[in-house]
Amino acid sequence: MPRPIDRLAFTLALLLVFASVSAVADDKAAPTALTSADVLAQSPDSDWRALDPERTVYLELPQGRVVIELAPGFAPRHQAQLPQLLKQHYFDQLPILRVQDNYVVQWGDPHASDSSRAKSRGEAGGSLPAEFDIDSTKSGHFTPLGERDVYAEQVGFIDGFHAARDVASGRTWLTHCYGALGAGRDNAADSGSAAELYVVIGHAPRHLDRNVPVLGRVVQGMELLSSLPRGSEAMGFLADPAQGTAIQTFRLAADVAESERSALQVMRTDSRSFRAWIASRRSRHEEWFVDPVGKIELCNVSVPVREARPKS
Amino acid sequence: MPRPIDRLAFTLALLLVFASVSAVADDKAAPTALTSADVLAQSPDSDWRALDPERTVYLELPQGRVVIELAPGFAPRHQAQLPQLLKQHYFDQLPILRVQDNYVVQWGDPHASDSSRAKSRGEAGGSLPAEFDIDSTKSGHFTPLGERDVYAEQVGFIDGFHAARDVASGRTWLTHCYGALGAGRDNAADSGSAAELYVVIGHAPRHLDRNVPVLGRVVQGMELLSSLPRGSEAMGFLADPAQGTAIQTFRLAADVAESERSALQVMRTDSRSFRAWIASRRSRHEEWFVDPVGKIELCNVSVPVREARPKS
Repeated sequence: MPRPIDRLAFTLALLLVFASVSAVADDKAAPTALTSADVLAQSPDSDWRALDPERTVYLELPQGRVVIELAPGFAPRHQAQLPQLLKQHYFDQLPILRVQDNYVVQWGDPHASDSSRAKSRGEAGGSLPAEFDIDSTKSGHFTPLGERDVYAEQVGFIDGFHAARDVASGRTWLTHCYGALGAGRDNAADSGSAAELYVVIGHAPRHLDRNVPVLGRVVQGMELLSSLPRGSEAMGFLADPAQGTAIQTFRLAADVAESERSALQVMRTDSRSFRAWIASRRSRHEEWFVDPVGKIELCNVSVPVREARPKS
Repeated sequence: MPRPIDRLAFTLALLLVFASVSAVADDKAAPTALTSADVLAQSPDSDWRALDPERTVYLELPQGRVVIELAPGFAPRHQAQLPQLLKQHYFDQLPILRVQDNYVVQWGDPHASDSSRAKSRGEAGGSLPAEFDIDSTKSGHFTPLGERDVYAEQVGFIDGFHAARDVASGRTWLTHCYGALGAGRDNAADSGSAAELYVVIGHAPRHLDRNVPVLGRVVQGMELLSSLPRGSEAMGFLADPAQGTAIQTFRLAADVAESERSALQVMRTDSRSFRAWIASRRSRHEEWFVDPVGKIELCNVSVPVREARPKS
């Protein structure tokens, strides 16, 4: 027979479970009393999806593996070029070129602009037209954050990626949140390609939105990029990239033996759990918070990733 | 006699200087054609101030010096306790406790919660009342950013620090932008002190605003904190802090020989140059930008810092 305090705790726990389940089941993203941990614990498996090996890439560094999910619906010509470069092992042994604090890590061919020394891109070809945004009607399901934003009229999520849209122009684009993968370019809008890539390692440089294409985001291993020693030259370029970090391999997950793939799942951003997740990040019910906030900025909502449970 | 091309260049340069000077001299923060580099190059010395050694602290790590400017008008009891701890060398040899990716680096006594092993704080005393915001009438000059914000009614700058305010409540606070120095606490609002400190190393966790006091910001050496290896335990705590990074010394600049001080200057945030700086960050006139943006989020405006010019 439980003591009164235990019965009270039991009743509270039941109430919490009930409130939680009904909150997750609520189609509207109304504030709930759930913490983020509650949402993760209660999310059904159907609200998660496995990474598709055809649109997942592994950047293997001496420090470990960085797993990146690609967003194939955005910047289609860049997205088509990247696997071509990967298949011909273009990036293998190329160095990290740039580590700029509170900004980006960038990698590619240090001799790319010198035609006599540049590594061949083979059939993958050269620079590509600007692909900074797409037609909103072709973007797929958009889950609005339901908050204002400094940079865009609307912000939210598309298939696991942070996105923004503009109603008047009917355009949609992926945003430069922490961990975003982008494709560098020179001054001309059509001078970029998938051969020089960068990942955001600091406060979201949203001023890059619609100035360069975002191709995906890091879903595991961000800390391997963000903790790299910063470059000593202007804009964080390394004085001697050959002395820095070399890429071991950069491959499509589909080209890696199944037993060596990272078994990860991403929470579906069109799911009830994800709407509950947003609510739990907006209004903080963890005991630590004195002010539960009640507001949330786009890039402060991470998209949950978890290890897939082993098949029984 | 210059060739025509040189004359044209000369005329353009003159026009640029004229446009720049008139822009900097403009009291309103209207968009100008100046780039950030232009603003820095043209700012008069009177728009900069030297760091005050009485409110500057040096965190000396094996990797180098982190220079932090304190904001004495905010969290006054924490600000009074910190120099007391520094003077008794409280932090010297204490470890970095936590390095959480995209969040914070935190340092202090790993045994603080165990009274039998905790390092004595001597006369500096223990935990302090909550000091999360102050009366707006006592905050000093507020330079508004002139942009909307997700988290606060108004955002801007006070004496070199990113700040926010709420008109209805008449309260002002410093915000958790990249590089902000805060004072940790346990769950109780009055459980914090200046004995456990953290610095933001990722996307601004603005949900911490008004939940813990911000005491200052890093003005040099951020990359030494942001590139530390991440902790392996929950919330980025180190499994064994003794095996990580130890603080060599943590001192008030005034307690360091003048010849060993970092000679830095901060742009005055109540100056014309700073208003031109904001404008140059809002509307990007560098050749690289296809879309000049025209908007700017608070934490994407860094407060310029430079080495003081040697006295001639």
